[in-house]
Amino acid sequence: MAQRAFQDFYPDHVAHCYGCGRLNQHGLRIQTYWEGDDAVTRFRPRPEHTAIPGFVYGGLLASLLDCHGTGTAAAAMYRAEGRELDSLPAFRFVTAALKVEYLRPTPLDAELEVRGRVTERGRTKVVVSATVSANGVVTARGEVVAVPMPRSFEGPGEGGAPS
Amino acid sequence: MAQRAFQDFYPDHVAHCYGCGRLNQHGLRIQTYWEGDDAVTRFRPRPEHTAIPGFVYGGLLASLLDCHGTGTAAAAMYRAEGRELDSLPAFRFVTAALKVEYLRPTPLDAELEVRGRVTERGRTKVVVSATVSANGVVTARGEVVAVPMPRSFEGPGEGGAPS
Repeated sequence: MAQRAFQDFYPDHVAHCYGCGRLNQHGLRIQTYWEGDDAVTRFRPRPEHTAIPGFVYGGLLASLLDCHGTGTAAAAMYRAEGRELDSLPAFRFVTAALKVEYLRPTPLDAELEVRGRVTERGRTKVVVSATVSANGVVTARGEVVAVPMPRSFEGPGEGGAPS
Repeated sequence: MAQRAFQDFYPDHVAHCYGCGRLNQHGLRIQTYWEGDDAVTRFRPRPEHTAIPGFVYGGLLASLLDCHGTGTAAAAMYRAEGRELDSLPAFRFVTAALKVEYLRPTPLDAELEVRGRVTERGRTKVVVSATVSANGVVTARGEVVAVPMPRSFEGPGEGGAPS
């Protein structure tokens, strides 16, 4: 049976994200999988994800890294506890901080691979570092500081932003 | 006569960016203006720019900050030389690095204001720091390190990524 992506396990009420929600018809609907200790997302940009013609828009790369990071943070917490991704209590993470370094232009006409690992893991913060590659060449790298989803996402108040 | 946005001056071949290109029919087409020494972009998210229902997707905020930053970097260089935005030689910037801190959830049903300033300016690098606000409350802040567009955007090779 095919492996299910991290995002396939998100409950419906958190499955509307533009970047990773399987229920967002207009979104990117990224899917992330374990490959050993690496979390890997593959994504083919759409023609409109242009920066300069022929190259990928930096905001798309930021978006991929962001949702890859929060998904990986949650998956890593389940894995550390030896639990399935749909078991309770649920781990849901949002982004507190995102950094992206753009190393070279990313070609638009290629499948992109986001490959990352958890570099720090605690109950209050998980850090995921990742690269973006096209045709085997790393074109960007990023770091996501993911924090547990605050209650304020169910109403006004303080907290990080979901991604 | 109405003020023209920074992005209205981009030549056609660099006006296809998903974030800020006026010729990208599917894109965000952000527009940035001077308000004194501040550069300001106002943007109303679309319903699909959801994270958790009711809140804005973090990747959109990263995208707004990114294109706001590169546009402001170029505009600041023209301003420093007392030149119009369509005068030659042209300044075009791409993003070398982007940082975003998500401070609190950003409501989806609000006009967002990205407001920033140049905090460092040189020939090889311009840094733009900005905030994102909704209903007068700052929800995120970001920093863009913008560098002159490398020739590699006209072919393969090293360089930053456009935004």
